[in-house]
Amino acid sequence: MKKFIYVDNAATSKLDPIAYKKMKSYLIDNFGNASQPYSFSRGNKKALHDARKIIAACINAKPNEIFFTSGGTESDNWALRCLGEVGKNNNHIVTSCIEHHAILNTSEQLKTKGTVVDIVNVDQDGSVDLNNLENILKKSSNYNNTLVSIMLVNNEIGTIEPLKQVVNIAKKYKCYVHTDAVQAIGHINIDVQDLGVDLMSASAHKFNGPKGVGFLYVKEGTKLYSFITGGSQESGYRAGTENVASIVGMAIALKNNIDKLELNQKKLKQIEERFINELNKYNIDYIRNGAQNHVPGLINISIKNQNGEMLLHRLDLMGVLISTGSACDSKNNQVSHVIKSIKVNKEYEAGTIRISFGKYNTISDAEIVAKKLHEIIHKQ
Amino acid sequence: MKKFIYVDNAATSKLDPIAYKKMKSYLIDNFGNASQPYSFSRGNKKALHDARKIIAACINAKPNEIFFTSGGTESDNWALRCLGEVGKNNNHIVTSCIEHHAILNTSEQLKTKGTVVDIVNVDQDGSVDLNNLENILKKSSNYNNTLVSIMLVNNEIGTIEPLKQVVNIAKKYKCYVHTDAVQAIGHINIDVQDLGVDLMSASAHKFNGPKGVGFLYVKEGTKLYSFITGGSQESGYRAGTENVASIVGMAIALKNNIDKLELNQKKLKQIEERFINELNKYNIDYIRNGAQNHVPGLINISIKNQNGEMLLHRLDLMGVLISTGSACDSKNNQVSHVIKSIKVNKEYEAGTIRISFGKYNTISDAEIVAKKLHEIIHKQ
Repeated sequence: MKKFIYVDNAATSKLDPIAYKKMKSYLIDNFGNASQPYSFSRGNKKALHDARKIIAACINAKPNEIFFTSGGTESDNWALRCLGEVGKNNNHIVTSCIEHHAILNTSEQLKTKGTVVDIVNVDQDGSVDLNNLENILKKSSNYNNTLVSIMLVNNEIGTIEPLKQVVNIAKKYKCYVHTDAVQAIGHINIDVQDLGVDLMSASAHKFNGPKGVGFLYVKEGTKLYSFITGGSQESGYRAGTENVASIVGMAIALKNNIDKLELNQKKLKQIEERFINELNKYNIDYIRNGAQNHVPGLINISIKNQNGEMLLHRLDLMGVLISTGSACDSKNNQVSHVIKSIKVNKEYEAGTIRISFGKYNTISDAEIVAKKLHEIIHKQ
Repeated sequence: MKKFIYVDNAATSKLDPIAYKKMKSYLIDNFGNASQPYSFSRGNKKALHDARKIIAACINAKPNEIFFTSGGTESDNWALRCLGEVGKNNNHIVTSCIEHHAILNTSEQLKTKGTVVDIVNVDQDGSVDLNNLENILKKSSNYNNTLVSIMLVNNEIGTIEPLKQVVNIAKKYKCYVHTDAVQAIGHINIDVQDLGVDLMSASAHKFNGPKGVGFLYVKEGTKLYSFITGGSQESGYRAGTENVASIVGMAIALKNNIDKLELNQKKLKQIEERFINELNKYNIDYIRNGAQNHVPGLINISIKNQNGEMLLHRLDLMGVLISTGSACDSKNNQVSHVIKSIKVNKEYEAGTIRISFGKYNTISDAEIVAKKLHEIIHKQ
């Protein structure tokens, strides 16, 4: 019997065992510094090369467009902060009100340094308001440089943003587009060429890779400045001894998820459907948040006259691990900025929880989680 | 029989097997996001707490003075770049000509943004010229803010810098002091309170910890700005999901090295001595670079009428792994900035190599490396 049911895959996900196995050899035996010229490091150089190729293939990019980082937050910081260099001043960031704090707090900080920040609204589904975006971008010629940063999938409610349309509008006004795709990569199909973004952030531990590693996709030809300077690693754009083991683990985890993407998506849709059916069966009074077009497996619901924190802790006691919102924001016991932005009914908003199923979950997990929720809500 | 002799421990070091064993449990089973409030993450939170305590104890710091990063280069960037925030402008960085590129290239980049950068000279041992430092700092009142950044141990020649004297001078002029201690921590005794520095950078893989993790020591009361913004991890100062496995590995590796510091140092001094005796026995015509006061195990020599690159590759073919200088600089086949700064005799400088013994090396390794060098030099 399983000790607990982990349905918080949007916070972090279990490391793929095949990825771990490969990491192990670089942690233990092949520990050489990949930047050294001797034979012992040649395998490490090749491993980096292969990882870059694998990752690039997963998103239809070129290997030289992939830059390894320490995770999604660093990638987001890099993308936003290095815009500041493009024109040195008179810069402009346009982002949405439901971005991750890695984007919102970084934008806030850049504002104090003189960057103009405009925030795009979202509708009740959490989809960015494209008219609002276009109205903002009409003023973009006032700035040296405008970066539009809109996430691909929202981490709290799972909404897939209309990014191709965002790119179309942004390109009309000759703006750069970055997307925080941390919750999207490995979960939905991504073709960067089709999407047309200039920059894209990823974090390995959200797609069954290890923590502390991620990447930034940078479209060939995009003027890029370094965020972390020093040695000549990553073609001179990201200094620091290469974390070969984690980079290899990230590549394998991503490939394994992408190779079975349709299968995983199908399974997750079935799990989701069962979960929703069970909630309805138990007559739980809830609103489902997010758009119809959402990342498979992520379910954000607001339950009438409930408290998300209480539900989380009661479920925890029953061996079920869920979230109230972003893990990065878990110290603030308030209604999240995302839930506020989509204007959830006041009677429901405090009872917001996120259940995020992953590839290791089963239909039975969905049934148990719904049953436990029912027990807490109806039998307390 | 060993497949090869690894004597490039200053480039990176073999992961401590006890550290690896502990990492494994956080990689595989205890994979929860440390920022989540449920029970599954409690062990991870405690592991972070314990790691912070262990590391702090190793350098006589307080746990709240330790901030985890992705490595030494990030720590260096954080220290230098966040000085830029202190006064917003009219900032001043004073560093030495033999710093790691993480310091020198970052200073160069900040210069283009308006920070004034002054470079302190070193003597032929690679020790910073304290009179030169004081003369530079006499003008520090012209600036809003001055940060002195001098490494604790030079990565190429092993010289231990007179940091207490640097701090004494800097404090006279009310300047902050940062030290890049990447090559020092775990190898020489460090007491941050005795040293008196405000900021100190460390990288785990230089002391038998994993790659992709490090820390920045920040003295309590030092005004600190975030370099990577987002979630509220690391008391709100360094965003990004905590890399628990690597942080735990770093703490254990450091503790294991510190617990046996005297023993390791004694052994390394014996290995060094034997190596030097062997070189002399074989009548190799060399100059030893660096100060008498150097990190145990690191030997930088310039051999007359030789070429370091050639020696490295010939030794590699014989199963001996050494370096010509910094791994981060290995793509540039030129005489390094450190060797240039200490003005090595022209007949010798091209023949510079670094042999860095570590805790897993033996006296026999020293004998073999010297013998192989002799064979290459005298029998080619």
